[in-house]
Amino acid sequence: MAPLVTLTTDFGRDSIYVAQLKAVLLSINPRLTLVDVTHEIPPQDVVSGAWILRHTVPYFPEGSFHLAVVDPGVGTARRCLAVDWESRYVVAPDNGLVTFLCQLSLPRKIVWIENRAYFRAEVSSTFHARDIMGPALAWLTQGVPLEELGPLTGEWVQLAGDWRPRITDREIEGRVVFVDRFGNLITNIEKNSWPKHATPVIKVGDHQFAEVSRTYGEHRPGDLIALFGSQGYLEIAVVNGSAAERTKLTVGTPVLVTW
Amino acid sequence: MAPLVTLTTDFGRDSIYVAQLKAVLLSINPRLTLVDVTHEIPPQDVVSGAWILRHTVPYFPEGSFHLAVVDPGVGTARRCLAVDWESRYVVAPDNGLVTFLCQLSLPRKIVWIENRAYFRAEVSSTFHARDIMGPALAWLTQGVPLEELGPLTGEWVQLAGDWRPRITDREIEGRVVFVDRFGNLITNIEKNSWPKHATPVIKVGDHQFAEVSRTYGEHRPGDLIALFGSQGYLEIAVVNGSAAERTKLTVGTPVLVTW
Amino acid sequence: MAPLVTLTTDFGRDSIYVAQLKAVLLSINPRLTLVDVTHEIPPQDVVSGAWILRHTVPYFPEGSFHLAVVDPGVGTARRCLAVDWESRYVVAPDNGLVTFLCQLSLPRKIVWIENRAYFRAEVSSTFHARDIMGPALAWLTQGVPLEELGPLTGEWVQLAGDWRPRITDREIEGRVVFVDRFGNLITNIEKNSWPKHATPVIKVGDHQFAEVSRTYGEHRPGDLIALFGSQGYLEIAVVNGSAAERTKLTVGTPVLVTW
Repeated sequence: MAPLVTLTTDFGRDSIYVAQLKAVLLSINPRLTLVDVTHEIPPQDVVSGAWILRHTVPYFPEGSFHLAVVDPGVGTARRCLAVDWESRYVVAPDNGLVTFLCQLSLPRKIVWIENRAYFRAEVSSTFHARDIMGPALAWLTQGVPLEELGPLTGEWVQLAGDWRPRITDREIEGRVVFVDRFGNLITNIEKNSWPKHATPVIKVGDHQFAEVSRTYGEHRPGDLIALFGSQGYLEIAVVNGSAAERTKLTVGTPVLVTW
Repeated sequence: MAPLVTLTTDFGRDSIYVAQLKAVLLSINPRLTLVDVTHEIPPQDVVSGAWILRHTVPYFPEGSFHLAVVDPGVGTARRCLAVDWESRYVVAPDNGLVTFLCQLSLPRKIVWIENRAYFRAEVSSTFHARDIMGPALAWLTQGVPLEELGPLTGEWVQLAGDWRPRITDREIEGRVVFVDRFGNLITNIEKNSWPKHATPVIKVGDHQFAEVSRTYGEHRPGDLIALFGSQGYLEIAVVNGSAAERTKLTVGTPVLVTW
Repeated sequence: MAPLVTLTTDFGRDSIYVAQLKAVLLSINPRLTLVDVTHEIPPQDVVSGAWILRHTVPYFPEGSFHLAVVDPGVGTARRCLAVDWESRYVVAPDNGLVTFLCQLSLPRKIVWIENRAYFRAEVSSTFHARDIMGPALAWLTQGVPLEELGPLTGEWVQLAGDWRPRITDREIEGRVVFVDRFGNLITNIEKNSWPKHATPVIKVGDHQFAEVSRTYGEHRPGDLIALFGSQGYLEIAVVNGSAAERTKLTVGTPVLVTW
């Protein structure tokens, strides 16, 4: 069976970096099925990368492999991780990128990638995806056990700050966690945490919403609205426009829901 | 042999929707060869999707599979189709998306996808590509017969209005059917229907063309011209620019050729 | 083993041309693993295509196949090449596209693709990637020997002008060879040719640089700087901006380094 490998990076689609990475992966294991999740994560935006991982890895089957590289610390002392998450194998820099995934359920096993036998012969200081993480993942697909890559660890870096919504019986305090390509501001507030018998008010930056819209169709182009998106999260949107441009708000902005 | 599956959607490249769809397909059949035709059909633009299908499916070999999803009616009562078109298997919402393909030649067999045994366990109201059509297509690649998916039917939805050019010995009445990424307005008027011994006049919106240019090179940047494109269709173009932006015309605009 | 095929073109991602090309390749050999390097080379920009080939093909394993099509001369008398470069097989129009790769090391063998038995049944005048080069490459992956495609030759077209930097003990004369998606101007001047015990001055167009920056971080947004990029080449960049837009310089511009 061809091992399944997904790629999630900020290298830019059409870049030679993606091609060089795939060349290294396929040199080590020519039987791979590669799936590009995205190479268009905003440069060095670890939170967005973590969000994408959280919403893609769980859909892939057990035994699949996932390389995630958003790596502002490349060339510094930051470590690289190989993670057994629900029998899916994730390789990433140890910078918080696996935070949201590991909040969903704790990883079964984590190692620090240190065994140079599984690195590329030449290791650059700027491209560890190609020279360290890519090769390590490709060797995993060849059946090398996780523990071969380096020492087991119980530690890994988490994103600074609390990225889980705080929910009480009077309010929900969440954050913007992702900006999609339409400029919609996606929050970490889920529909199933929404109060059933109340009419909450939503505050984001200077903006306030007294209602959650059901569809875009109820509004006029240009209206700034709040609604639940197709993945079940509260989002702030501009009808036929970009909420990110209009509000100048971005990932990390607090969102307060009170009732 | 790895079954070949093409994907044509308006989900947006780099979106988690495409990744979730591929995850579901590969979970059911890990041996698939996936080809992304495009995920950048303008949102909900069924006519453009139909045009792309018409110009890609026939090039793929017999026994190939094609998932096409532009689905403004998702969540309503619209049906989903599985079509045997010249021994290529197409799965799509029943909203006209297969119109141009089925004008090329009639499908051999069509079923309405209704057998929930081949759906994803949980079916959302907003993402039938992942929950219904994707799984149905993946099971077809596993050898499940078309008839297993649901009842045979002789009906399917056609795009409203007549999208075939009307040709007489004095004129051709066609339409703009596609806007490419350069903003060229592609019509459904083919070179082989062009009069051989006459000099037609072309009218599109407020614009009139007394000649068909042979190449862009004959003109100055910014000129609005008519010419036959590489697929053999009459198109309206701006040299080094966008005819769609200049003229504000779009898919559906009538094109009248008289001589 | 599934043969590995990379694709490097200016057809535009999401275009029906890429889909038609893949359909033809997979019709001849359904077992292919396809890797899209890019379809976003600036239209007809042979130099950029040559640069991409130079920086991707060598990373792929021996026995891999590479189709490169930037083809302003399609429909004219220009030939098509099949090249054995370090046991990687490259098919391309004979217009200079393999120049940088063949400067890295001389090809072992080159043939002109002339044997119509390996063409598509119908050959258009505008799409030789689909009708000639794609089929020829797909047949190579099926084990057809290079010599079957046409006569061996010792000639191939080189890019006009000298694209290798001229290096003396007082100066380096190079050129801009690529503009990346951020608008950085990449030159062909490599770090390992840089003088060790001198402080060179760099001249590009009307701009002069007295130092090579180590990182973007040392500068303010909007600053125009010179630095060595991650592939080891001197590049001109605007911090958080586009050097191509700012300077209006492009591929081919001379770069003079003196000390």
